[in-house]
Amino acid sequence: MNLKNIRVVLVNPLYASNVGAACRAMKNMGLNDLALVAPRCDVTTHECQQWACHANNILKKRREFATLAEAVADCELVAGATARPGLYREHTRTPRDWAPRLLAATATGHVALVFGPEDNGLGNDDLALCTQLMRIPSSARYASLNLAQAVMVVGYELFTATKRFKIPTERTAEAPNGMREQMFKMWRQGLLEIGFMEEQMADHMMLGLRRIFSRGPLSENDVRILIGVGRQMQWCAGEMRRRGAVPPRAKTKP
Amino acid sequence: MNLKNIRVVLVNPLYASNVGAACRAMKNMGLNDLALVAPRCDVTTHECQQWACHANNILKKRREFATLAEAVADCELVAGATARPGLYREHTRTPRDWAPRLLAATATGHVALVFGPEDNGLGNDDLALCTQLMRIPSSARYASLNLAQAVMVVGYELFTATKRFKIPTERTAEAPNGMREQMFKMWRQGLLEIGFMEEQMADHMMLGLRRIFSRGPLSENDVRILIGVGRQMQWCAGEMRRRGAVPPRAKTKP
Repeated sequence: MNLKNIRVVLVNPLYASNVGAACRAMKNMGLNDLALVAPRCDVTTHECQQWACHANNILKKRREFATLAEAVADCELVAGATARPGLYREHTRTPRDWAPRLLAATATGHVALVFGPEDNGLGNDDLALCTQLMRIPSSARYASLNLAQAVMVVGYELFTATKRFKIPTERTAEAPNGMREQMFKMWRQGLLEIGFMEEQMADHMMLGLRRIFSRGPLSENDVRILIGVGRQMQWCAGEMRRRGAVPPRAKTKP
Repeated sequence: MNLKNIRVVLVNPLYASNVGAACRAMKNMGLNDLALVAPRCDVTTHECQQWACHANNILKKRREFATLAEAVADCELVAGATARPGLYREHTRTPRDWAPRLLAATATGHVALVFGPEDNGLGNDDLALCTQLMRIPSSARYASLNLAQAVMVVGYELFTATKRFKIPTERTAEAPNGMREQMFKMWRQGLLEIGFMEEQMADHMMLGLRRIFSRGPLSENDVRILIGVGRQMQWCAGEMRRRGAVPPRAKTKP
């Protein structure tokens, strides 16, 4: 897999803002080879650069071609994005479906991702050059994505399919049982001492608290915070007693 | 699962173009409840409407709030998007990871998807209100997505996780063996008659053609087209013979 071998090809783009935004989407998703086929907008404007934001390097080293055939001549696979149905578009698959095959081909050669103009999308002449057709899942009420948004979704699917992105993980996913039991012991004692519950109800109440704290994962850091809360309850109750106060509930019983 | 219960919340957005583009992305992905928290741009401009395109209805019925707390007060889950790392952001997951839980919650109540301002993203005060943190997979070289692009990716993950989108499928995925064999028979005869191959090489050559035609799926429509080609080769060869011509290769043998 080599994302460097993926070329984004925009056919006859109409708005410089979309070309710029497509550059940013490409860089976000680890792509950097941009080809424009006979653009109908001026991509040297400040507006276009603003939309590209920190992806101006991609905009600068873009290549322009007179025809789609020239832009993809050296590509092993050519995947065209289309939202239109039709007899010769029935073998369309989603970008997620195609991603493994497209990525596999990048090991040996170039792969083109082709996007049509904002006003009409890819025509049949363009689709004839495509070895794969892609349809981005979208609502039937408004199926057509903005050009740069379509580049983002397809780029995102290829980028995530590389499985190279690792979400930062917590140092410990779950605290070990011994730590959790130490926490429950601190809480049981603390809750008794501050007068939240009486001894005869304590086991019952602790089952409720065990349920609450087992709804989701608890990391070692989480449990350390909660142990600190239990300890502080006990400290506070001790200070209170030392000053002659009696917890409200404890008062009701001898 | 009820996409109607998903609210997109944009905190202090700076550019009307992004708010408009976010509306379009929402409609593309079946979402329609937009809340703005103290926007810093004029979303009543023609520019904003142009970016919303056919999603102007979402822009029109947006609600505005002074604070994030008010915008999400009635939400069961509040999922905030953040690309920044940090101690209290370690439990971040990808939108794809969170999608099943967020969708499940829409069955009983509202779910908010919260996106920070273009210049700074969500701050710690905003994140404190979030029950889930989301990090969109992106390149380490340029991790920060455009606001509307982030709305698109998160909306896309939720929309695709509903599994309601069905890609148009071909009427027949694979033609049955009998049809394929009829096709190979037509081709064998046709290729012999037009002089592409001689009888003693025919079986060998047909193995090559079988390999070519089994690289990918062949639908019934595909096979019908190929049967037509085989038939036409035979017709053409017959016309040729009737006019006294002899195929070039056949000439070399008696």
